[in-house]
Amino acid sequence: MKTNPGRFFEDYKVGEVITHGVPRTVSGGERALYHALYPARHALYSSDQFAADCGLRAAPLDDLIVFHIVFGKTVPDISLNALANLGYAEARWLLPVYPGDTLRSVSEVVGLKQNSNGKSGIVWVRTTGLNQRDEPVLSYVRWVMVRKRDLGVAAPEVVKPELLGAVAAEDLVIPAGLDFGGYDFALAGEPHRLGDYGIGEQIDHVDGVTIEEAEHMMATRLWQNTARVHFDATAHPDGQRLIYGGHVISLARSLSFNGLANAQMIAGLNGGAHVNPCFAGDTVRAWSEVLDKAETSSPGVGAIRLRLVATKGDTFELREGDGRYLPDVLLDLDYWALMPL
Amino acid sequence: MKTNPGRFFEDYKVGEVITHGVPRTVSGGERALYHALYPARHALYSSDQFAADCGLRAAPLDDLIVFHIVFGKTVPDISLNALANLGYAEARWLLPVYPGDTLRSVSEVVGLKQNSNGKSGIVWVRTTGLNQRDEPVLSYVRWVMVRKRDLGVAAPEVVKPELLGAVAAEDLVIPAGLDFGGYDFALAGEPHRLGDYGIGEQIDHVDGVTIEEAEHMMATRLWQNTARVHFDATAHPDGQRLIYGGHVISLARSLSFNGLANAQMIAGLNGGAHVNPCFAGDTVRAWSEVLDKAETSSPGVGAIRLRLVATKGDTFELREGDGRYLPDVLLDLDYWALMPL
Amino acid sequence: MKTNPGRFFEDYKVGEVITHGVPRTVSGGERALYHALYPARHALYSSDQFAADCGLRAAPLDDLIVFHIVFGKTVPDISLNALANLGYAEARWLLPVYPGDTLRSVSEVVGLKQNSNGKSGIVWVRTTGLNQRDEPVLSYVRWVMVRKRDLGVAAPEVVKPELLGAVAAEDLVIPAGLDFGGYDFALAGEPHRLGDYGIGEQIDHVDGVTIEEAEHMMATRLWQNTARVHFDATAHPDGQRLIYGGHVISLARSLSFNGLANAQMIAGLNGGAHVNPCFAGDTVRAWSEVLDKAETSSPGVGAIRLRLVATKGDTFELREGDGRYLPDVLLDLDYWALMPL
Repeated sequence: MKTNPGRFFEDYKVGEVITHGVPRTVSGGERALYHALYPARHALYSSDQFAADCGLRAAPLDDLIVFHIVFGKTVPDISLNALANLGYAEARWLLPVYPGDTLRSVSEVVGLKQNSNGKSGIVWVRTTGLNQRDEPVLSYVRWVMVRKRDLGVAAPEVVKPELLGAVAAEDLVIPAGLDFGGYDFALAGEPHRLGDYGIGEQIDHVDGVTIEEAEHMMATRLWQNTARVHFDATAHPDGQRLIYGGHVISLARSLSFNGLANAQMIAGLNGGAHVNPCFAGDTVRAWSEVLDKAETSSPGVGAIRLRLVATKGDTFELREGDGRYLPDVLLDLDYWALMPL
Repeated sequence: MKTNPGRFFEDYKVGEVITHGVPRTVSGGERALYHALYPARHALYSSDQFAADCGLRAAPLDDLIVFHIVFGKTVPDISLNALANLGYAEARWLLPVYPGDTLRSVSEVVGLKQNSNGKSGIVWVRTTGLNQRDEPVLSYVRWVMVRKRDLGVAAPEVVKPELLGAVAAEDLVIPAGLDFGGYDFALAGEPHRLGDYGIGEQIDHVDGVTIEEAEHMMATRLWQNTARVHFDATAHPDGQRLIYGGHVISLARSLSFNGLANAQMIAGLNGGAHVNPCFAGDTVRAWSEVLDKAETSSPGVGAIRLRLVATKGDTFELREGDGRYLPDVLLDLDYWALMPL
Repeated sequence: MKTNPGRFFEDYKVGEVITHGVPRTVSGGERALYHALYPARHALYSSDQFAADCGLRAAPLDDLIVFHIVFGKTVPDISLNALANLGYAEARWLLPVYPGDTLRSVSEVVGLKQNSNGKSGIVWVRTTGLNQRDEPVLSYVRWVMVRKRDLGVAAPEVVKPELLGAVAAEDLVIPAGLDFGGYDFALAGEPHRLGDYGIGEQIDHVDGVTIEEAEHMMATRLWQNTARVHFDATAHPDGQRLIYGGHVISLARSLSFNGLANAQMIAGLNGGAHVNPCFAGDTVRAWSEVLDKAETSSPGVGAIRLRLVATKGDTFELREGDGRYLPDVLLDLDYWALMPL
């Protein structure tokens, strides 16, 4: 058979390094599409001039473009037969990506644990995105539940990676040259600096966006993510297409501009869960909670740790009394962003 | 509160200059999207070669891309609490914008007049778009009706700017070097020069385009226009999203290629009214009327003043007997374009 | 009348050369949109690095972008009054097209045959796409059935061009410098080389894509194709818009990555028929059949001749017992691609 059947649980070995196919050169086209598909407005990613004034050589591509491209390449090898996308951890952005850069992905299998039912198991991979100079630009761990094809294969030795609950602020990688000393708050769109936010503060990002099928499919294809459920209406009993979780992440992050316009660069992602499915017709809103704050060694650059919640409802409520997420909640994300002190 | 509540009528002072946030570097990506979202075909904006043969260094971005970007930046400061977008005047394009340029907007409050009901007022602003060299690329006046938050604040002194009914042909700014002396009508797509059009002549642009939600939202986001009514189906009783008026302008202008292929550059906008709302599912058609013609000081370059009407119907009728616009009419725009003599 | 009424059958003369309007400079924006509209993943068109490793100076634009742009320009002159798009033949890609290139089209009328009903006739044209250096980048013959406006005009002498059933492998133009000697199959996404495919082998490309109105209209506009039926819901009794046949070609070709990831460059198109109309809501699948294989004079470069079938169903069946295409079949295309030996 010439087509890719995907890998099954018994096909993974701890320590194996998988080279993912289809490297990608990015241009201003990817940025324009990103800004058409999401209400993205962070000035550092919108203006070469603003980025240069912050010490970068030009406006990088939005960090989540990099995440989606690096992630998308892993789908044919990691999650084609996945039953569930269980989590992310220890994501760090290591180098800005500029138009003209070429991205590729490699993943190392860092954990395996067969489920007690013998029919599936959990696979942990550490994925690294690399540019055309083989420099790592992004690294993260994700874990997925994958079906077994041959139930007769013995369970592998259990290897469960030890994962940090959160990237430590001092381990965040600040782009070389980044300097918020002369940061222009008026051009950035909001006056709030790190000192204006208090730990525990919640921000309602106010606006809602109703999603269309054409939009999430265009986005997901742009990242060369091939998971069938996003594109084929006949694959779902209701004729609906499941929206790629990353689409909801980008939508929520873009909506968070309103209140967090100066949370410019995403430097780390501590964890995230897609807690309910999202479909076309849903109107997505977002709110954030400040989890932590830190200084960095770069001039004027602080770090803010945020919970970002995407919801179809309009409250700050997250969970039922029994601890389960409310049905309106779509996403619960925990990340670090760089913000002027 | 960290989110932007927008300004209310009592927050504006005549003479105040507002720096709008989120500068934007444009690339070929914005052009490609514009040409995917609208049936745009004017050769000067499609081909570097054609533009160079007309004396420009490359194909500029479509003039309405510049308008939408400059306009979009003003929304959070000018029209977030607007009850109505009342008009435009005295718009002049001052310099072509090329891929790689960075645009930002500033607005000066040039007029204020509280309404007699005491609940709202009219704000006039002169908005200027600037490039990365701080050169103005576009200037226009618009006025909006804005709510008061605090009804107890006294009405400001009435200042009503004197606005020209139309930009005079001799005040149009012709791009340096523009030369239609060797204009290639075959490549431009139509043989008609300025002399072939008569004042009063009407042109039915024939084609219709049915609008989809995904299209107008992508366009409006691309201009970083954040007005909620365009994106949030729950904000409208019918679950429909109001289409950004600029979307209809671009659609009508693009349709006008068929009959006005040589009305290449938009140099001035004398006035415009969005006379009825437009929603997804509407099929938009357009017709034009020649209002005036003029020569310019540039070789082979004439100016044509056009009324451009977008409609959901299919007649040249504009108004009821009582002077009100017909319900099918969406847009009545008055602009100057540059055309080979 | 200023608008283009299109040409009618009696307006064509054998030997006439038609210069089509609206040249087009392409950028990374067109590529990004193509990869958002179709699940395109061939590595040579996705990565400058991969293309350089194959001897090209950068990743060219996808061959079908070139086809659609060159074709789109001919619509106002060739098929505005067409009753049917009857076929393609003898298409050869002659030179890669890179971001920054400018494309234009010319067509020569190479055949005419009035239908026996006297109301229409068949027009054959050879269309050539040229770049900014006037180098041909693509050449193909297509024929369409066009209405007569004036039934009284006498039938022209019948001229029926002799067309090849298929481009001979030795007549395919291999881009200068192309070298698959060091081809990286892991980065390309699949391990299969030309020798792994057998003549007669059928490949089910597995995935399906449900089409939205916004997507096919954006694509068709991007190619500046103006045929009304694709955009105007009021032009069709069901309120549906007929999807541009090229949209189905691109969708099927992109889906064929899964099983034919190494069929990198399209070098020739031997024939093709849009056998049933396609509408939004259809879920398109694809399968391929290997028709022929050949070596070329370039290092490591082979040629594979493929039948590519797009279908709304899920079988390899193509025709009814009486030879007619099955109603689920949308496209039957015959092309040559270049593949590592």
